[in-house]
Amino acid sequence: MEFDLIELIRRHTAQARDDVRVGIGDDAAVLAVPPGKELAVAIDTLVEGVHFPLGTAPANLGWKALAVNLSDLAAMGASPAWALLALTLPGADAAFVEGFAEGFAQLARPHRLALVGGDTTRGPLTISVAAHGFVPPGQALTRAGARVGDAVLVTGTLGDAAAGLHAVQQLPREDDGRAGLRGFLIERLNRPTPRLATGIALRGQATACVDVSDGLLADLGHICTASGVAAEIEAAWLPRSSALLELYDETTALHFALSGGDDYELCFTVPASRVAELQAGLARLGCGATKIGRIVEGEGVRVRAADGAWLATDRPGWEHFA
Amino acid sequence: MEFDLIELIRRHTAQARDDVRVGIGDDAAVLAVPPGKELAVAIDTLVEGVHFPLGTAPANLGWKALAVNLSDLAAMGASPAWALLALTLPGADAAFVEGFAEGFAQLARPHRLALVGGDTTRGPLTISVAAHGFVPPGQALTRAGARVGDAVLVTGTLGDAAAGLHAVQQLPREDDGRAGLRGFLIERLNRPTPRLATGIALRGQATACVDVSDGLLADLGHICTASGVAAEIEAAWLPRSSALLELYDETTALHFALSGGDDYELCFTVPASRVAELQAGLARLGCGATKIGRIVEGEGVRVRAADGAWLATDRPGWEHFA
Repeated sequence: MEFDLIELIRRHTAQARDDVRVGIGDDAAVLAVPPGKELAVAIDTLVEGVHFPLGTAPANLGWKALAVNLSDLAAMGASPAWALLALTLPGADAAFVEGFAEGFAQLARPHRLALVGGDTTRGPLTISVAAHGFVPPGQALTRAGARVGDAVLVTGTLGDAAAGLHAVQQLPREDDGRAGLRGFLIERLNRPTPRLATGIALRGQATACVDVSDGLLADLGHICTASGVAAEIEAAWLPRSSALLELYDETTALHFALSGGDDYELCFTVPASRVAELQAGLARLGCGATKIGRIVEGEGVRVRAADGAWLATDRPGWEHFA
Repeated sequence: MEFDLIELIRRHTAQARDDVRVGIGDDAAVLAVPPGKELAVAIDTLVEGVHFPLGTAPANLGWKALAVNLSDLAAMGASPAWALLALTLPGADAAFVEGFAEGFAQLARPHRLALVGGDTTRGPLTISVAAHGFVPPGQALTRAGARVGDAVLVTGTLGDAAAGLHAVQQLPREDDGRAGLRGFLIERLNRPTPRLATGIALRGQATACVDVSDGLLADLGHICTASGVAAEIEAAWLPRSSALLELYDETTALHFALSGGDDYELCFTVPASRVAELQAGLARLGCGATKIGRIVEGEGVRVRAADGAWLATDRPGWEHFA
């Protein structure tokens, strides 16, 4: 049965790539990294009941399991090429696997990403994907280069996925005319968009970059720790969707934007003098970036409310095992 | 906490490698494949209660999770370089992680393999490792090249791991003077030796190669399917350890050798004229190989008993979801 499941996935995800010498179906894949490129590699796991609610549609899981890894590649400024899939399932559920593969392929196809290998095992529903991409030598974005005086920017909007998870967990309700707004937030939770074009455009521009998977405070905190600096964020500057602002009060919306995970936007730092030009360039790529604060001396992330007071932000986002 | 666990693992598994540009601690690792090499990549998952018994020592899990992937690289003729680890744990158990990391490192160190990234998540105990290695262009061993007339060989001995699992699952018993034999078999189950030097030596020699993870019949069957041939095995030629033969009757020992999984030996095919010379070379590497049969026209794997009769072997080894 294992072979059949992998074959089902292969049929959905086949991509003709010259750099795949041996693909799915042998003991290992054999791949050719282009001359003059370095390889960026990330692995991330989704566990049922921890990273997604029971009952999440298989196609959404297929999309998201790939998206969270492509988001890691985006944060490094890498362009995606190949992925491996380790899929643990309670049983040999062909309908599940078919849906999963289709969702995976919907995200893989436009990026010409090829699934080159995998393993299916029996057990509690758990999905690990390892994604591989290319980056020119020495041009990978890391968390370690932020400097005092840099501006802090973030792509897209923050807090939507946390609100989407909240919406999913509510009881079904009478039609209140807000289903469209909730649908938007749930889509942001289930089908995050890895900011790959943005990450590539940030090569040579951003001094540090991270993707927002555990919440802005936690992830920007990683940049501060790795760079030996602190960050000051202006709450009023945080980009938030109209759906988030219409459905939730300000306190909740701010909490989701600062501490909610799963947005998979990029948070990055750039020299203050280059912000305007960079923003114009990123907007032309289809996903703008908003300035939300600055890098200062010290350590940690501080948030200033609209009235100028510093917020108590001692809950540093959602941490595994917290 | 996640960061602390990964940091604990990093401390145990740090390896100075010039080709690791960015290691553990960023969104992705950045790696440099040597010029003129192709990349071999495999991923395999171990699930508690499915791939190892409850109560298996963490250090054994760390070793085995890496070993099963290095075995895949060995089957391709690749030399190992880097690994990623996705570790799902019921809780933040530092003692478990420390033991796991030490077992992982015991196998990684002699191969100079560096752990370059990972993800720790909360959930049922599940371990996925993605291993990366190098192989000269076009020299990867695959399952697809076996030709009629080739000899079939296997490294080491078969059936030990299945017997080891049987021994682990027995009730504790009075000292019968056989604990050493059982200990050998259990060690073979818990600490398999990936045949990396053998795999490298088989480049340009073997026409097809696979590692024995699901049992000889199943894995040799993969070679037959991929190559469009059949195989005939002589039961009397199967290499079996003295521990297996002393503790189990002939029928059981033969069943373990043919259908037991988890041995992680290499099964490969070579032109019959080159068997003797190749065997002499492999023996000098420290792990000999035994001729167990031949490739013939047709499909599937047949086994001839010592009396010349064909055995009924309709159970093609342990298959996932079977």
